[in-house]
Amino acid sequence: MIEIHPLEGIPEIHRGDDLVGLIGEALAGTGLTPTGGDVLVVTHKIVSKAEGATRALIGDEDAAYRALVEEEAVEILRRRGDLVIAKTRHGFICANAGVDRSNTELGTAVLLPADPDRSAHALRMGLLQHTGVDMPVIITDTFGRAWRAGLCDVAIGVSGIDPILDLRGTTDDFGRELKVTEVAVADEIAAAADLAMGKATASPVALVRGLGLPPGNGRASDLVREAHGDLFR
Amino acid sequence: MIEIHPLEGIPEIHRGDDLVGLIGEALAGTGLTPTGGDVLVVTHKIVSKAEGATRALIGDEDAAYRALVEEEAVEILRRRGDLVIAKTRHGFICANAGVDRSNTELGTAVLLPADPDRSAHALRMGLLQHTGVDMPVIITDTFGRAWRAGLCDVAIGVSGIDPILDLRGTTDDFGRELKVTEVAVADEIAAAADLAMGKATASPVALVRGLGLPPGNGRASDLVREAHGDLFR
Repeated sequence: MIEIHPLEGIPEIHRGDDLVGLIGEALAGTGLTPTGGDVLVVTHKIVSKAEGATRALIGDEDAAYRALVEEEAVEILRRRGDLVIAKTRHGFICANAGVDRSNTELGTAVLLPADPDRSAHALRMGLLQHTGVDMPVIITDTFGRAWRAGLCDVAIGVSGIDPILDLRGTTDDFGRELKVTEVAVADEIAAAADLAMGKATASPVALVRGLGLPPGNGRASDLVREAHGDLFR
Repeated sequence: MIEIHPLEGIPEIHRGDDLVGLIGEALAGTGLTPTGGDVLVVTHKIVSKAEGATRALIGDEDAAYRALVEEEAVEILRRRGDLVIAKTRHGFICANAGVDRSNTELGTAVLLPADPDRSAHALRMGLLQHTGVDMPVIITDTFGRAWRAGLCDVAIGVSGIDPILDLRGTTDDFGRELKVTEVAVADEIAAAADLAMGKATASPVALVRGLGLPPGNGRASDLVREAHGDLFR
């Protein structure tokens, strides 16, 4: 069985806040005893806010927002009306280059963390100190998809696991070798955690238990399909 | 908390097998008491096999497979080497038009169910009779994505919920109205269930508990982005 526990009581985050302490406290509040098999899933918004990756939208807010999106984009793939599908400097392809105006103080926008893998690693190391347990950390954002309606949470930062579970070389129930089964397990964990965290509630962290994943040293960039291997650019 | 329970003991499925009876038995084996708040997630492969949506690959297996993919595709979006990205008659865009040669008897391939929403509805109604509980059902497949590496399970058939959770009109923590937050909740549930089911194991069904979703009458086609609204065709 897999369990997904949303952590409660994490307040609105501001620049410089001690995320490790706040998450550690929220963890303690669950009454759960963390183990190295647990994975901690953290929405990037609180990481970005703690790191100061927010911007005031000065003057005409819509215009300031659009300018910020252009600034954060390293490549624009498509535009339609106000919607921009862009590549970020991390290599992610998403709406508005990851710049978001929801769940942030009025008149501000939240950017993606500068280096979400590094942020995940820092949280993991901080929580290791705080709790004595080395738990993998996944930092998430909410992305749209080509061809499918609606949004799903995905992993944009990873520490302590391999975000892709490579089953190539294992065999199926009929003894046939699996050839192309690389599961985007970090994205599936991000999606699963989102089910527990909700969108409009104040639960930006979840603990996922029972995954049975081996430790790993992967990076979120492992989840980025290289441009030369991508048929849809 | 959300719980994901893989159901154990479901045998290899053949055409005409009583899926409702087998899933009902596996459910009973968990010791859980099903409730209307639970969602049952079923990998399409056992549904396709029970419905006879499999084909023998006669003669040159690779050639027969490629011909089958062309037959199942209503539109080819991209080709590279053996890989075909195609639209199925259901409107899904996926590799090889959903025709799969893993976890099926040697010399055969499995197609998508002819009408996965109808299959989901039939399972739901059958299990309502069998257990006395009306549980939503999601039928899943494993899809690749544009721009992101690795595969994730998604919903291809739905009964009893709306696959898109529409948060438009609700407000965020700052009182700002959420404008574009439509969560592909059925895809997130599919991804979550895959974490518990694994790929190489014989656990093709999972019960997901604690989602707190309202009942709904949506269809998997709600998850298909209309061609005219899709910037990546």
